[in-house]
Amino acid sequence: MIPLVTLQDVQRANERIAGQVQRSPMPKSEPLSADLGCNVYVKLENLQRTGSFKERGACNKLACLNASERARGVIAASAGNHAQGVAYHAHRLGIPATIVMPEPSPLVKVRATKAYGAEVVLYGANYDDAFLRAKEIEKERGQIFVHAFDDPLVIAGQGTIGLEILEDLPNVDAIILAVGGGGLISGVAAAVKALRPGVEIIGVNMANIDSMRASVAKGSLVTLPAAQTIADGIAVRTVSALTLEHVQKYVDRVVTVDEEETANAILQLLEKEKTVAEGAGAAPMAALIHRDLGLKGKSVVVGICGGNINVNLIARIIERALIKDGRRTRLSVILPDRPGQLAALLDRVAKAGANVLEVHHERVSQRLSLADTEVELVLETRGFEHIQELLATLASAGLQPTQK
Amino acid sequence: MIPLVTLQDVQRANERIAGQVQRSPMPKSEPLSADLGCNVYVKLENLQRTGSFKERGACNKLACLNASERARGVIAASAGNHAQGVAYHAHRLGIPATIVMPEPSPLVKVRATKAYGAEVVLYGANYDDAFLRAKEIEKERGQIFVHAFDDPLVIAGQGTIGLEILEDLPNVDAIILAVGGGGLISGVAAAVKALRPGVEIIGVNMANIDSMRASVAKGSLVTLPAAQTIADGIAVRTVSALTLEHVQKYVDRVVTVDEEETANAILQLLEKEKTVAEGAGAAPMAALIHRDLGLKGKSVVVGICGGNINVNLIARIIERALIKDGRRTRLSVILPDRPGQLAALLDRVAKAGANVLEVHHERVSQRLSLADTEVELVLETRGFEHIQELLATLASAGLQPTQK
Repeated sequence: MIPLVTLQDVQRANERIAGQVQRSPMPKSEPLSADLGCNVYVKLENLQRTGSFKERGACNKLACLNASERARGVIAASAGNHAQGVAYHAHRLGIPATIVMPEPSPLVKVRATKAYGAEVVLYGANYDDAFLRAKEIEKERGQIFVHAFDDPLVIAGQGTIGLEILEDLPNVDAIILAVGGGGLISGVAAAVKALRPGVEIIGVNMANIDSMRASVAKGSLVTLPAAQTIADGIAVRTVSALTLEHVQKYVDRVVTVDEEETANAILQLLEKEKTVAEGAGAAPMAALIHRDLGLKGKSVVVGICGGNINVNLIARIIERALIKDGRRTRLSVILPDRPGQLAALLDRVAKAGANVLEVHHERVSQRLSLADTEVELVLETRGFEHIQELLATLASAGLQPTQK
Repeated sequence: MIPLVTLQDVQRANERIAGQVQRSPMPKSEPLSADLGCNVYVKLENLQRTGSFKERGACNKLACLNASERARGVIAASAGNHAQGVAYHAHRLGIPATIVMPEPSPLVKVRATKAYGAEVVLYGANYDDAFLRAKEIEKERGQIFVHAFDDPLVIAGQGTIGLEILEDLPNVDAIILAVGGGGLISGVAAAVKALRPGVEIIGVNMANIDSMRASVAKGSLVTLPAAQTIADGIAVRTVSALTLEHVQKYVDRVVTVDEEETANAILQLLEKEKTVAEGAGAAPMAALIHRDLGLKGKSVVVGICGGNINVNLIARIIERALIKDGRRTRLSVILPDRPGQLAALLDRVAKAGANVLEVHHERVSQRLSLADTEVELVLETRGFEHIQELLATLASAGLQPTQK
């Protein structure tokens, strides 16, 4: 039996990190509450200085080191938020930090981690490789290993979110959190179930890499193959015995969401909550939006655990979503190849209220007679009805429009 | 002489709206502080329920109506944030609300205003037309007009932001706010200068429609022609005598920023602060980033006054910015028109570490000999150095690459 993290551990962590980690805001989302038929509150951990909740656990762990440990420094393995959390607080506390990151880590995350003052070692193809290298460095240098989730002090630090939730919303009915390795949900569940056993704690994983759910189902640790996901922050192949035990004891259920659902939640958080969530940060909202969790009429806190997403990805998510919503469309028409035809077409499109984003003009194709030319348009539209109107207008002008 | 809004007016407003409007968070931005050499705090008014600070003034005004005025209801003219602020709080307080919006108002804003329970009247081509119609309805229906900025109660409501800033950051040196009609900056400056005269108050307008700056320069109200801007929320043609007076008395200076600078600030807020700002909400940050305001080493609060931006626009801003940063590039190469050449090209590109977003294959062009074909690629790259490496690699393979 591993000793589990207690409410007292979390309360002590809360005293230790006070003033060093932001007390994140938890506004009610009026639009999402109206859409979903429950009172939705968003716990904005993406507003932490390094963009995620990981600082809480890192800060608590570092605050517990003695003078000799501090002098030796700390080591961690991570490609993402944990790296930045450890680097930032180590730097602030004057503790040397080494972070092993997989070689394909995004340049922007490597740069951010270095900017927080850490020594970055790039090693291996993935997290597992980096982790093994970090364990070697731990021995070589005698540095203190700061695990992202398999550590009671780290779990207790993350659990401080639970205390803040109960303080801000004493009548909360359910809390939905991303799982991944399970550090966050273990700490929050341990604290909340001790104080308010009736609060439901729901975990969320990605459907294609849900090692915690698989481990709970089997009753012991399961290692899953690596998988690509938009929520790279929770793509953990193996949870730990410690977090599994917490989840078995304190978490009511773990559900999964898919990539599309998570992308949609990222977009809804941008549009309705003006907030930038990374995939793992949006997964719990995806579960509330796209699963029937039986929470109608309840007060629900959704953890937005991080916001470190590449803007490239945001642009792609928006573009795809606009197409799915009928707010962007791609269509082609066949024009007689005579001067002025393209100008006339664009005039018709403008009068129909669509905004032209791209024009591709193709003169040669197997499908076309020699006298015709094909034009492909990318347009901003106002929805599916508007697209249908536009197609009808173009068809009645003999332009044979087809939507792509 | 018009009586100006006093500290007491703002304090009374603060009591009236307490619990009805969010006390918005004001985190320190570590990355922007490091970049800009001062302590940068962002006052996140975009997290208000309707996405902007406008609720404060609307709520204060509505709270001051007597029973008979409440029964008659309120009327306002606005295409944007003021409409939503008035509609939301009127609905909450059980006061009927009519909002006149210009006919070309974005569908999403019209829908949001209706969703908050207001009667929406679509009228005219622009704000001025809608304003005149609203003044007619005021007389026809005997409803109370709620002006977006020309009203001491609205100004006092917006000023409550100043009290929160001083409470959260007593040693603030400067506050930067968007101007537009001047309601926000008038209220904040009146409160802050009364309590802490040494705090510098800096206003920001768009360079192509800066009616407040023009009015201050002339010493009386100036009406400017309408202008298209990314910051539509502050594209005000004429300020009011009341706000001009406040700005003359309390605001230290008004500076301007351009469209590119504002788009860049929107992107930096997304990436570094995980927050969605509309154009007007990002303009003050644009001023801090792109103007030398002499604030090195100082503690500076930047008002992020609203987040109601179309996601379409976010996607476009990201795309343009990526191209400017060398993180996206468009280039073309000339290939011999033989089978397998395109596959070989894409293999080279992949090995150079660039990610292919689009491929356009053109077989016929004046520039090309009949045996050649031109391929245009849109690529994700890691910066200008990476693009140069890529061009060199392709050139050494005889592919005549050109960047577009």
